[in-house]
Amino acid sequence: MNRIPIDEVCETLAAVLRRFGFTDERAQTCARLFTETTCDGVYTHGINRFPRFVATVRNGAVDVEAQPQVVSHFGAMERWDGQCGPGNLNALAAMERAMELSREHGLGCVALGNTNHWMRGGTYGWQAAEAGLIGICWTNTMPNLPPWGGAEPCIGNNPLVIAVPRAEGHVVLDMAMSQFSYGALESYRNRGEMLPMEGGFDVEGNLTRDPAAIEKSQRALPVGYWKGSGLSIVLDMIAAMTSLGLATHQLAADPLRETGLSQVFVAMNPDALGPAPTGSHIADEVVASLHRCKPAKAGSAVRYPGEQTLRMRAENQRLGLPIDPTVWAQILAM
Amino acid sequence: MNRIPIDEVCETLAAVLRRFGFTDERAQTCARLFTETTCDGVYTHGINRFPRFVATVRNGAVDVEAQPQVVSHFGAMERWDGQCGPGNLNALAAMERAMELSREHGLGCVALGNTNHWMRGGTYGWQAAEAGLIGICWTNTMPNLPPWGGAEPCIGNNPLVIAVPRAEGHVVLDMAMSQFSYGALESYRNRGEMLPMEGGFDVEGNLTRDPAAIEKSQRALPVGYWKGSGLSIVLDMIAAMTSLGLATHQLAADPLRETGLSQVFVAMNPDALGPAPTGSHIADEVVASLHRCKPAKAGSAVRYPGEQTLRMRAENQRLGLPIDPTVWAQILAM
Repeated sequence: MNRIPIDEVCETLAAVLRRFGFTDERAQTCARLFTETTCDGVYTHGINRFPRFVATVRNGAVDVEAQPQVVSHFGAMERWDGQCGPGNLNALAAMERAMELSREHGLGCVALGNTNHWMRGGTYGWQAAEAGLIGICWTNTMPNLPPWGGAEPCIGNNPLVIAVPRAEGHVVLDMAMSQFSYGALESYRNRGEMLPMEGGFDVEGNLTRDPAAIEKSQRALPVGYWKGSGLSIVLDMIAAMTSLGLATHQLAADPLRETGLSQVFVAMNPDALGPAPTGSHIADEVVASLHRCKPAKAGSAVRYPGEQTLRMRAENQRLGLPIDPTVWAQILAM
Repeated sequence: MNRIPIDEVCETLAAVLRRFGFTDERAQTCARLFTETTCDGVYTHGINRFPRFVATVRNGAVDVEAQPQVVSHFGAMERWDGQCGPGNLNALAAMERAMELSREHGLGCVALGNTNHWMRGGTYGWQAAEAGLIGICWTNTMPNLPPWGGAEPCIGNNPLVIAVPRAEGHVVLDMAMSQFSYGALESYRNRGEMLPMEGGFDVEGNLTRDPAAIEKSQRALPVGYWKGSGLSIVLDMIAAMTSLGLATHQLAADPLRETGLSQVFVAMNPDALGPAPTGSHIADEVVASLHRCKPAKAGSAVRYPGEQTLRMRAENQRLGLPIDPTVWAQILAM
């Protein structure tokens, strides 16, 4: 793994994006989001995902010039058409607007249809939390997960992000509705390891820890079995209903053709209801209660969602971003 | 199991509540919520829970005369103090107000602190959906679940409810963050059955399907392991921060003293952004896509959350409510 300075990585990606028709400002922002994702240690959705993103620009799934448009608005709620623009730029703009609405109304919501993969969902949670706001957002995806009781992928893994601002480090949950992604199954298989818990069914329909058996059956487990399956279904319905965009079953089951996604961005302003004390000390106290919890393994500790991020970010800022040389060579050749 | 006509059950409960100081109107509403919960087939949180509810009235945890009060408001958001009143009446009023706010602002939110157990969370989802609104609400609970990486119950099972209106039957997800409740573990143990999947750790820290081993260790699993643990944590933080109420770690770990809960009620008006077509056909199409999904077992079918409810409701309305004779005798003696 190479270590490359952040600014060099960001400028390299931006230069590629400019060559594909991004304006300078949009290229910078889009490149920054990929770079920050790797810097935060979410390697699957940062630089490693950039070649696939460029492939969707090349094949026309992503329209580099498209800007999201407001379709309708009512009070604290807006419906946007993403015009099949770059998914991360659309999502960033939608959360920014939900944040503005929350400053005006206490909470705000933007329903964004006709958009593309938002890359790391956590990005938009951090965005809200950095501004002192609670951020809640989710996206639907192509069918990639069997519902509970189903034998084929009919629902999406529909990531859900919930972020809570906190002076000592924001709390950011970023969870897909599959227990293990296919990327994670592949990693376990390549290392010759079993999963630490049951992650899906084998072709005979038995629960299994064998990653290869799940890759073969294509029957990964939703988190919490019937519960995560149900959560995926209602998140998909709400995203499509509020944006009047596509639902999971209408999306192409091909990562390079997965376009026209529906997403929801909600921001809540915990300070709107003032007066002080604001709720920030409450988040601190919850974190302290977790740190007091007796750990399952001596020497370890219970962590809050996102607790590792600031440490990873500082380390990668100091040492440079760890980049797979093969991926980097691909990007330099673009 | 006896079958007793709904009206007789409801009137019997209301009479008990009046004897404990409920006004006639509040006794009727509170009794109706318990009765409807049993009618919908959620037996754990209906009539079977009534004796425990009355015990919390008797010991003063629930103040039968208290009415929730608005503490502050800003735009589409309000903070309420539940004054330790009856949890189901407080929650019903809070969701009703969130629904009003959503008609005015597109979406609305009531953060309710200092309240009591809301009994069946799904009640408030059905309430929003019956009015054609999307309802999202959650509650924190006393510490009753170990966080991921923890060996003792430090987080709540914090039920989350998400309801989507649909002409042919609302879609209502009502999920606690524990994979199996202690009530469910007890049922499996009494039947001499293993759980259908791993539901917790034994005292040695191994994942197990043995309900008795989990009851012994008190280490039930969060849904999706680290994922449901994280979701429980952020839901608790948001409920306490927005209501300025108590967080899970501050609540007494005793079902009869579990008072001062924090809850969030959000309503979204999918029609606010008009014009028609509204999103209702979208929910229908998602349901149709689930029904087309190849089932894991021949002859079965994939179901949406809440799909069984209308059938159960109709059956129980026709035949009368199935009531445990012991519980009924207890209630008649109150």
